Amino acid sequence: MRLAHLTWTDIAALSTDTPVLIPTGAVEQHGAHMPLATDTILVTAVAEAVEARLTDRVILTPTVWLGASLHHLPFPGTLSASFDAYHLALNNIIVSLADHGFHRFMVVNGHGGNADSNRIVLRELKHQRPELTLAYQGYYDLWPAELCAEVMEGPDRQIQHACEAETSLMLHVQPDLVKMDRARDDGLRPESGFAGGIWAFNEITEAGSLGYATLATAEKGKRLFEAAVEGVTQWVESCANGVTLKGIVGSGTI
Amino acid sequence: MRLAHLTWTDIAALSTDTPVLIPTGAVEQHGAHMPLATDTILVTAVAEAVEARLTDRVILTPTVWLGASLHHLPFPGTLSASFDAYHLALNNIIVSLADHGFHRFMVVNGHGGNADSNRIVLRELKHQRPELTLAYQGYYDLWPAELCAEVMEGPDRQIQHACEAETSLMLHVQPDLVKMDRARDDGLRPESGFAGGIWAFNEITEAGSLGYATLATAEKGKRLFEAAVEGVTQWVESCANGVTLKGIVGSGTI
Amino acid sequence: MRLAHLTWTDIAALSTDTPVLIPTGAVEQHGAHMPLATDTILVTAVAEAVEARLTDRVILTPTVWLGASLHHLPFPGTLSASFDAYHLALNNIIVSLADHGFHRFMVVNGHGGNADSNRIVLRELKHQRPELTLAYQGYYDLWPAELCAEVMEGPDRQIQHACEAETSLMLHVQPDLVKMDRARDDGLRPESGFAGGIWAFNEITEAGSLGYATLATAEKGKRLFEAAVEGVTQWVESCANGVTLKGIVGSGTI
Amino acid sequence: MRLAHLTWTDIAALSTDTPVLIPTGAVEQHGAHMPLATDTILVTAVAEAVEARLTDRVILTPTVWLGASLHHLPFPGTLSASFDAYHLALNNIIVSLADHGFHRFMVVNGHGGNADSNRIVLRELKHQRPELTLAYQGYYDLWPAELCAEVMEGPDRQIQHACEAETSLMLHVQPDLVKMDRARDDGLRPESGFAGGIWAFNEITEAGSLGYATLATAEKGKRLFEAAVEGVTQWVESCANGVTLKGIVGSGTI
Amino acid sequence: MRLAHLTWTDIAALSTDTPVLIPTGAVEQHGAHMPLATDTILVTAVAEAVEARLTDRVILTPTVWLGASLHHLPFPGTLSASFDAYHLALNNIIVSLADHGFHRFMVVNGHGGNADSNRIVLRELKHQRPELTLAYQGYYDLWPAELCAEVMEGPDRQIQHACEAETSLMLHVQPDLVKMDRARDDGLRPESGFAGGIWAFNEITEAGSLGYATLATAEKGKRLFEAAVEGVTQWVESCANGVTLKGIVGSGTI
Amino acid sequence: MRLAHLTWTDIAALSTDTPVLIPTGAVEQHGAHMPLATDTILVTAVAEAVEARLTDRVILTPTVWLGASLHHLPFPGTLSASFDAYHLALNNIIVSLADHGFHRFMVVNGHGGNADSNRIVLRELKHQRPELTLAYQGYYDLWPAELCAEVMEGPDRQIQHACEAETSLMLHVQPDLVKMDRARDDGLRPESGFAGGIWAFNEITEAGSLGYATLATAEKGKRLFEAAVEGVTQWVESCANGVTLKGIVGSGTI
Repeated sequence: MRLAHLTWTDIAALSTDTPVLIPTGAVEQHGAHMPLATDTILVTAVAEAVEARLTDRVILTPTVWLGASLHHLPFPGTLSASFDAYHLALNNIIVSLADHGFHRFMVVNGHGGNADSNRIVLRELKHQRPELTLAYQGYYDLWPAELCAEVMEGPDRQIQHACEAETSLMLHVQPDLVKMDRARDDGLRPESGFAGGIWAFNEITEAGSLGYATLATAEKGKRLFEAAVEGVTQWVESCANGVTLKGIVGSGTI
Repeated sequence: MRLAHLTWTDIAALSTDTPVLIPTGAVEQHGAHMPLATDTILVTAVAEAVEARLTDRVILTPTVWLGASLHHLPFPGTLSASFDAYHLALNNIIVSLADHGFHRFMVVNGHGGNADSNRIVLRELKHQRPELTLAYQGYYDLWPAELCAEVMEGPDRQIQHACEAETSLMLHVQPDLVKMDRARDDGLRPESGFAGGIWAFNEITEAGSLGYATLATAEKGKRLFEAAVEGVTQWVESCANGVTLKGIVGSGTI
Repeated sequence: MRLAHLTWTDIAALSTDTPVLIPTGAVEQHGAHMPLATDTILVTAVAEAVEARLTDRVILTPTVWLGASLHHLPFPGTLSASFDAYHLALNNIIVSLADHGFHRFMVVNGHGGNADSNRIVLRELKHQRPELTLAYQGYYDLWPAELCAEVMEGPDRQIQHACEAETSLMLHVQPDLVKMDRARDDGLRPESGFAGGIWAFNEITEAGSLGYATLATAEKGKRLFEAAVEGVTQWVESCANGVTLKGIVGSGTI
Repeated sequence: MRLAHLTWTDIAALSTDTPVLIPTGAVEQHGAHMPLATDTILVTAVAEAVEARLTDRVILTPTVWLGASLHHLPFPGTLSASFDAYHLALNNIIVSLADHGFHRFMVVNGHGGNADSNRIVLRELKHQRPELTLAYQGYYDLWPAELCAEVMEGPDRQIQHACEAETSLMLHVQPDLVKMDRARDDGLRPESGFAGGIWAFNEITEAGSLGYATLATAEKGKRLFEAAVEGVTQWVESCANGVTLKGIVGSGTI
Repeated sequence: MRLAHLTWTDIAALSTDTPVLIPTGAVEQHGAHMPLATDTILVTAVAEAVEARLTDRVILTPTVWLGASLHHLPFPGTLSASFDAYHLALNNIIVSLADHGFHRFMVVNGHGGNADSNRIVLRELKHQRPELTLAYQGYYDLWPAELCAEVMEGPDRQIQHACEAETSLMLHVQPDLVKMDRARDDGLRPESGFAGGIWAFNEITEAGSLGYATLATAEKGKRLFEAAVEGVTQWVESCANGVTLKGIVGSGTI
Repeated sequence: MRLAHLTWTDIAALSTDTPVLIPTGAVEQHGAHMPLATDTILVTAVAEAVEARLTDRVILTPTVWLGASLHHLPFPGTLSASFDAYHLALNNIIVSLADHGFHRFMVVNGHGGNADSNRIVLRELKHQRPELTLAYQGYYDLWPAELCAEVMEGPDRQIQHACEAETSLMLHVQPDLVKMDRARDDGLRPESGFAGGIWAFNEITEAGSLGYATLATAEKGKRLFEAAVEGVTQWVESCANGVTLKGIVGSGTI
């Protein structure tokens, strides 16, 4: 169900066990060949396809389109939230519904720059409201681990920014907004040894994209998109069914 | 032009004199008969119609849909920003573009609850960046003053919340989301003498709407909508042409 | 009763149903002819006259004199709160008393620049403490709607800033602080079509005042002042008597 | 000069070397015998007497009456700023004038609870604007060190809260607001060894006052008041004359 | 060089090209067998060993020991910063030095819960001060990728929380603080399908540790520790030598 | 007991009546002859000596080393918290433990610049959690009042900054970090009459120290140190024994 299209009386009639799916995107530069809203368009398309499958098993909110994109601000047209603004917005959405008893919130992300923030918002909420079930994933975290290696052709077989994978997704989802004639392979990286650098995108790209955008095709995009929809659908279902924990053993937080 | 659909290189090619139009809406209860996104749907429809007329004379941003709706939170489904969250988001959008030289920002509003906040954000920005040209109006402030009295039939001939006027607008813009069978005339007001009360909507309505929703028709909505589009179009044009001030005399701020 | 002059034991002996009246003013430029504290002087004079009439039916707090006056800061001598500072101060005053059970708070304003902020503070409080009765009005909102047209002579018959009306009020309330020889008619406004502009006062005035100050007289001021006192008195009484709501229908917030 | 009574053009005509004197008070319980505004009344009376002596050698702002009084909030009628609210307000006042070139700011305090905050605000400002000359003192810090021992009779010969000294000052300054029949000797302190305790005043007093209020007289108050006025006058003059530093050696901050 | 032990004149004599290494740890529960300061002890030991090797090629600051540990607060003894507190502290440290011209800052982390925050602080700083070179890594990110698989014996061969690896590190670094008799294998995880859950540690552990602590040995710890020191040393050197970027292609941020 | 070295299960086994001792220091310039961490080193040494005496009657936390040192930032190497950052950190430490029932918190300070802030944090906490017992003192406030006059030889017999007393303390506690050949007598003060000035240390010192550092000896330091340890020990014991209040009369807060 799309929350935006329901009335408050419709919401009041739902089970508060229904998971709430919150897509987070961005409006930021995506190279010379892709629209500023790329991340928002893609995560919304995935989320709406998931909603279409699960119908009354999920509540889909509008997409948080003002993302954490400070690192793209050197390129005009990028609209970025400050971290505080982003954190407050996502927190407010969840609290608005949690105050009415909803307790399962799943944040699905389409913009890597939101990842740290999404986790921080959820962690802070978990501290304040330990009874909530909260989860965060990028749609690209939920397709099979080996998928990029299979689908992509370029030397760097992971999804990056306005790259082969993301451009392919847009060619599948909204091809009229992609200008393939402007696509270019782009990206700089530090000499070996210097890891974890925090860069602005005007330092590490020439025109804003990272990777081999010229290799993008709608066919590749279709495979990735369908896998994302499948992955997110299963993820939401696993929550709708009720999460149970079993011992032993966890997964990597120190 | 819709910013969301442009690339950063498209934005870089524009004159920074181009006015930026920022619609602000809400996702909040609109009675039992209208969808939660009503304000966002209407202001977006108006703004897109304006953009369609002015094309390259305006940059239209995505709509700020997380509004200042604390007074509607008692109704489930309402998603409200805190005032801080709302102020930061609108500020961030403007600053992102002002840092690249854009200097004309026009905020068009579809949710009365945003009005105070929109003015505060712009006033604070004006203090920080006196060179900017900033303006705020509701789309309903820009149609002829006498229009409501002409178009509406009920005893309260002004636009309120989920009322005759707003329901009519939705019947024109997106009728499939209106459930007229659930519409009701609703609203309470204080005995005479007590003005300026700050109310939550569960205190002053029975089911969330204010006014005579049962009188709404698509025809009335069409007249209001077209007048709003005309009003906003002229308003944006007045800015695009360059604003000049002349003496004497102002209009009412003490 | 003036809170400032009571002891805490006096306050402890009062009914917590007693309305609390909080005046909000400013210390900001008022042209070359009026003192910086004009708004504070006027709203305090009105509020004290109301208190003198209602005596034990109202608690009058000291006037919040540090107003939201960013738009007047280009003129030296203006002291302005940031919006955050103003919001916190007004909130703190109310919460200090609400924590002891007082539940009726009426903010009477003498500076238009505080209006948005006063509403926002009260709306946020209403969300946090729904049991409170909260109201906001300018003293100039509570005199008869047609009064300015009757009393004023200049072409712009509404109260503005350091104008015919406000200068008249000061000539009645504290004439020794008005320098009529420096008064001037002043003010600029945009060409038709551009509404809702957010201006600093050095853009829209030459010396800080808006309107026809030269037409001010003490006699006009007396009429306005007495009407303001009467209006605020009735307003406070309507709250002291207990506010009741009745259907149908509301008054204009979308 | 009193800033409140000047016009902006008067301020614009002043030398920006003129020191600005900012009184800080409170509206908080002062026992059963003294009014809530005691601190504000006293510091304002001292500051106005200083202004009357120095006339055009000082700019006196209105008194910051909403003090840092959290520790008095258990008593009804106390109005307290949060620390953030207090810090912002004092900062805003100084910045408003510093932006027009004034550079000498002297904060004179009448409420011990403001002392930490006054220093913090000035220290933060000093960091941001190293060119400013900033100073803070209570009016009671500026009379001769031995004065209390000479004037007071009770066993605790220092100024405290609603005590012999402060009550005497009020009997001199505004005797109609003092109810000596309600005065009482009051106050608790910890057994020896436990220093630096942070108390609320309902823990360490029975009715809100600390010390021997019953010993207060107007005559004692007159001596203290005149010494305070003399001390603050000399202090402001030392700044108006320009502060020079000479070696060796400082005064006690580690 | 350890900043803490230098004088300001020593710092003033350094090249501002010298990288600044800032360790971030925590004081939080580490199961029944390890001390609260485990993360701080380990990251400090690694950082000091690196400093001992690089001597005048690096400035080592004290360790930020108040970490982002909200998820461990259900266990007593845990001291956690709020996210805001943590962000401000790390920002302040860097800005203090950047204002004197230092421009290379490397944050080495010993507590996974700080990772999101460290990146956010650096990203915000990068936006404000684009000239800085900023990098973030956990010490455990900088040993060879295959090391855990080689060294560890339990079924989960990655470093987690108070696990086989971390306990081994402590047995090497400060064995007197480890109580192996209390160590236990611990940890719960969700049934397959539910990824990205945000948990408090009292939900996913029985006594606070994740993994196979009982398999820990000092010998394993020695191998991990030395590899961490080697990895961090090379990382700092890569920065001290000056980072250069080359095309094509980046590393994974969407 | 040192909290850092305990496990959470150790903490869980303690009486929540046990006082928590929190040392606060700084990393800031201490002249050309003393290390940046001087304040942290000294307060930690005092606190650890106290803990060694009281063992299980006190819980000692790690030292807050990032102090409120804005006034020392003009000297490179100083690391200063903003006031907000400092306030949050100290608040967070106390709240982390108070949420588990600990209710006696004693902040012992080694850096005068933290004094205002320590009091403010505790006062705000006292307002929020009136059940807590909170106290603040510098270690130098707890030795006998006459000690400095007895031990010191220079003309200014009080502890200041990097002065005779503080340098002596370091010569006793960590002599290898003191460079006596660089010590100098230093400090400027305003001509008489100007009290309460807020200075940056580059204004009132030539090389960062205040007082007669050249007179420092390890023997003087030993006497001061032992007196500080004795004073803090008794202070903590007075709290561990339970604080009782008796009338009459208080100690000096207006």
